[in-house]
Amino acid sequence: MELLEDRILAEGRYLGNGILKVDGFINHQVDPALMNAAGQEFARLFADVGATKILTAEISGIAPAVYTGQHMRLPVVYARKRKPITMPDQVLLTLAPSHTKGRMVELIVSPEYLAGGEQVLIIDDFLASGATIEGLARLAEIAGAKVVGIGVLIEKTFEGGRDALAHLGVPIHSLAAITSFEGGEIHFD
Amino acid sequence: MELLEDRILAEGRYLGNGILKVDGFINHQVDPALMNAAGQEFARLFADVGATKILTAEISGIAPAVYTGQHMRLPVVYARKRKPITMPDQVLLTLAPSHTKGRMVELIVSPEYLAGGEQVLIIDDFLASGATIEGLARLAEIAGAKVVGIGVLIEKTFEGGRDALAHLGVPIHSLAAITSFEGGEIHFD
Repeated sequence: MELLEDRILAEGRYLGNGILKVDGFINHQVDPALMNAAGQEFARLFADVGATKILTAEISGIAPAVYTGQHMRLPVVYARKRKPITMPDQVLLTLAPSHTKGRMVELIVSPEYLAGGEQVLIIDDFLASGATIEGLARLAEIAGAKVVGIGVLIEKTFEGGRDALAHLGVPIHSLAAITSFEGGEIHFD
Repeated sequence: MELLEDRILAEGRYLGNGILKVDGFINHQVDPALMNAAGQEFARLFADVGATKILTAEISGIAPAVYTGQHMRLPVVYARKRKPITMPDQVLLTLAPSHTKGRMVELIVSPEYLAGGEQVLIIDDFLASGATIEGLARLAEIAGAKVVGIGVLIEKTFEGGRDALAHLGVPIHSLAAITSFEGGEIHFD
């Protein structure tokens, strides 16, 4: 999506160690119009996968996921990283390594909102190693649901996430695919 | 907002101790159409306050804040509860007690995205004691910004948040005001 690529080029900053800072429009400050456009694009890309629910992980997946849900007229579930007191004792839980946190984080979904037979479209901000999305796919599997697609705002193709998720056999779309940070610059596919 | 009150009556569940569970459409599963309607309503209510930025706290404030930002054509900043590695060393930080977590949490904003002279509209999911919103207002103040309004999806009027925030001297709007859980039922204003 050109709109997103242009924004990354204009305002993204490469911090080294594979970390791209997009805090000005995705990860801390959010540009709602951009997220709306991204949601619209995901809705177009995944129009035919038969999704019945959007699944994402808190925190930065929420904005793109909610707009995707709006344009597809689907509810959105965000996996929590801590179990809130409103959640039942019996939950769906898995662990996933967090690249930006350098440790394992829990991904928790209440079985109230992810049920057997659901067709799940996973939306997130980044696809790097694929570990978070793999965790979300495991949650869907535990619930007896089926993953039908994966959409991310930004893919770092050189971190291998797409290959790691290939076994799911579902379409994977990224709106901006970064192939390298060679020379400290951002290079797109 | 009747749409929200109806939804709370139909799907909200009172868990005791003043805790209202709305995990089916706000706090874990999100109904994008409802959040869009809420954002539209906030945009109408705060059309004349001169806001230049929306401020919320992760996690559950993000969806209503982003839609409010979209309808007001304003960027949205969500205060983080942990400092991500993409944030500069020097941040704006305050502590606020979390009702649902039973401990103090940090609210962190990068000075890159909350600057002196900004006119801040605070949006959040709940207004209970007002402690989180008070924390967000402190962050705005430290930044040299000015709070110009406060909007929440659900107010629990009996927890005194509106009075606690009165010293800010700004309009406070809630889309659903719960006056009591007497008899385990949800009573609106």
